[in-house]
Amino acid sequence: MVAADLRVDLERLRQDIEALASIGRDPTGGISRPAWSPAHEEARAWLLGRLREAGLATRVDPAGNVFGRLGEGSPVVMTGSHIDTVPRGGPLDGALGVLAGLECLRAVAASGRQPGRPLEVAAFTDEEGRFYGFFGSRALTGSLDRVLAERLSAPTGLPLPEAMRRAGFDLAAAPTARRDPREIAAYVELHIEQGPWLEVDDVPIGVVEGIVGIRRFRLTFVGQPDHAGTTPMDRRKDAFLTAAEYATKSRELVVRGGEGRAVTTIGVVEVRPGVPNIVPERATLLQELRDSDPALLDRLASRTLQAARRVARQRGLVLEVEHLMRADPVLMSPRIQATIEATAKELGLGTRRMPSGAGHDAQILAAVTEAGMIFVPSQGGRSHRPDEWTDWPALERGANMLLGTLLRLAS
Amino acid sequence: MVAADLRVDLERLRQDIEALASIGRDPTGGISRPAWSPAHEEARAWLLGRLREAGLATRVDPAGNVFGRLGEGSPVVMTGSHIDTVPRGGPLDGALGVLAGLECLRAVAASGRQPGRPLEVAAFTDEEGRFYGFFGSRALTGSLDRVLAERLSAPTGLPLPEAMRRAGFDLAAAPTARRDPREIAAYVELHIEQGPWLEVDDVPIGVVEGIVGIRRFRLTFVGQPDHAGTTPMDRRKDAFLTAAEYATKSRELVVRGGEGRAVTTIGVVEVRPGVPNIVPERATLLQELRDSDPALLDRLASRTLQAARRVARQRGLVLEVEHLMRADPVLMSPRIQATIEATAKELGLGTRRMPSGAGHDAQILAAVTEAGMIFVPSQGGRSHRPDEWTDWPALERGANMLLGTLLRLAS
Repeated sequence: MVAADLRVDLERLRQDIEALASIGRDPTGGISRPAWSPAHEEARAWLLGRLREAGLATRVDPAGNVFGRLGEGSPVVMTGSHIDTVPRGGPLDGALGVLAGLECLRAVAASGRQPGRPLEVAAFTDEEGRFYGFFGSRALTGSLDRVLAERLSAPTGLPLPEAMRRAGFDLAAAPTARRDPREIAAYVELHIEQGPWLEVDDVPIGVVEGIVGIRRFRLTFVGQPDHAGTTPMDRRKDAFLTAAEYATKSRELVVRGGEGRAVTTIGVVEVRPGVPNIVPERATLLQELRDSDPALLDRLASRTLQAARRVARQRGLVLEVEHLMRADPVLMSPRIQATIEATAKELGLGTRRMPSGAGHDAQILAAVTEAGMIFVPSQGGRSHRPDEWTDWPALERGANMLLGTLLRLAS
Repeated sequence: MVAADLRVDLERLRQDIEALASIGRDPTGGISRPAWSPAHEEARAWLLGRLREAGLATRVDPAGNVFGRLGEGSPVVMTGSHIDTVPRGGPLDGALGVLAGLECLRAVAASGRQPGRPLEVAAFTDEEGRFYGFFGSRALTGSLDRVLAERLSAPTGLPLPEAMRRAGFDLAAAPTARRDPREIAAYVELHIEQGPWLEVDDVPIGVVEGIVGIRRFRLTFVGQPDHAGTTPMDRRKDAFLTAAEYATKSRELVVRGGEGRAVTTIGVVEVRPGVPNIVPERATLLQELRDSDPALLDRLASRTLQAARRVARQRGLVLEVEHLMRADPVLMSPRIQATIEATAKELGLGTRRMPSGAGHDAQILAAVTEAGMIFVPSQGGRSHRPDEWTDWPALERGANMLLGTLLRLAS
């Protein structure tokens, strides 16, 4: 049943990766294709051309998702990822899953084989959340919140409805991108690990067990904007120094209580009024915690917020807390994990089961179908940056893993 | 010789303070008159009108400084301060020194007395440094750096030459505002303390011994912009957490080694790339240290920079240091301090000698003439904020101290 001899063509995949990487690339090598931007729309047009050249039936749905399909009927076995990027991202990330999926369908089409089920490759809109994370896969699975979507803007202030309009789309129509879950038999996505472990332990293939949960909150320490020259240290209510003291404690709490696995990041920091000679009145930290164990996540969130309140109280400041996101961990399908492992065995590749620390469209698809993910190593664990990379033999192994897995799922 | 019976008219001073406070005031009470802005030019025009109504000879020099003069000849005894404000500042700060000076000259003029020397009140341009701190007093004393001035912009990006042009001034002509030092016999400035000590210890008058020195530097911690979900805590080079750890240590160093007097402020903080799901690659802190002892300042600056290097090294980050400002402490004239104390004795007011933690035009004038400062208490030590205040009786005492001191210096 499974064509153990069918392989992807690395040269075709390489050309596609290099061609897509040239869209939105700045002179220093960073690749910026934010969702709905001109660079993103250029990439969409390019992708549609490549899908058509491969002989696939193409479609763009009202949420901006792009599909290429091989074969007729229902349900489909779906693969894919996204072609939007973070600002100054790298060449792989979502692009790999989309282009390897295209190459798999191209290889099957070229072989003349007829899988038992049609195959479909998807590029989902705004996985990175310039406006609304997982916009495309949410629309596909019926979990888009349109009222929320209407209020969202990019960090530059551009509202989502206007950004969609400029690209020729209508937010009001996006929910009609929903597809009946019975039309999707399975979803499997190839991605770089984005972390160090596969490389460190020399394991070629990661089998994702689940995607970590996220707690995200905004903490604002409110003190007093005193004169920086005339206010003695012990009479200050310095919002930045208090936030800094808390941040240091928070790291200790997560390192100590996180079982070597949980992580926390304070990625956005704003200090006001933000001038050299006034003691900071307000310091705002946007912090997130991630782990695959929901109970541990809750425990760490509770401890770190307690620490924030304690430090604020000790320094005489007011603490404001806003809970921004609570995403529980999502499990990948055990059947698909087993299918990936069987494929690896056939290809003679070692595997490791592991969580994904990053979010992926697979976690959205998991709500309506059996979903799985295949990881290949990331050089130096780097991702979301211009020097994100995985060598070509490892990419070829990943694409062949995806091909074998799709064929097994479609058989 | 000294007219112990001559007093200011508090009601006239109150009207002037309230009138000037209404220029540039926003609906929440903050007063914003940044140098060369329309609000600042409106205040200048209002002040010129008040100086003329008081019968003074008025003049605006090419640096935008405003003068009102009583009497003929040279040298003059000068007082004054500034009418520009920080963003959302309060009603006193520089305004008090200018308006109390006006009231002193008005009181002398109304009394018909002829002091031995002419009296002059000045409002100096951009004391707060929207573009170039002490611009006006620097121009007057010949210490303006025109090459530097041409490169300066407001935080909004507006270049100084353009801001001056909009207000009808020409930067190229500003250095001609310089006056021969022999024309200025003495300079004395009334100001709110901007700190808590006079109020805490119930002392009505502060006699400024000197103005603290400032060391200002920019520290940039450079780490790695890793993915916030997939990079284990012990493999991160998190620029913000490292900067936070340093900031906490730096406070401890200054509190422990600062003899209860030195202060440090990190007022500007920038974290890049500044998104929730990327570990911060760069964290920039603009930090300053202030103290009246130059040796202590040097010691603290050296220790805190050592700590920054140590923390960066321990966490595997690179530290970049830029030295932005090194202003040594400036001493006030002992003769003027003694004159202020003699005046206080005559008025039955207690005094305390103290440093000024904030910078003032008096420190610029001190380079070319004998300079001194009189402080009145600040409620709650607050300044540079909308609720900056000193009660009317204390302001009246301060204005009478200024009057008596000017008359002694001019006799």
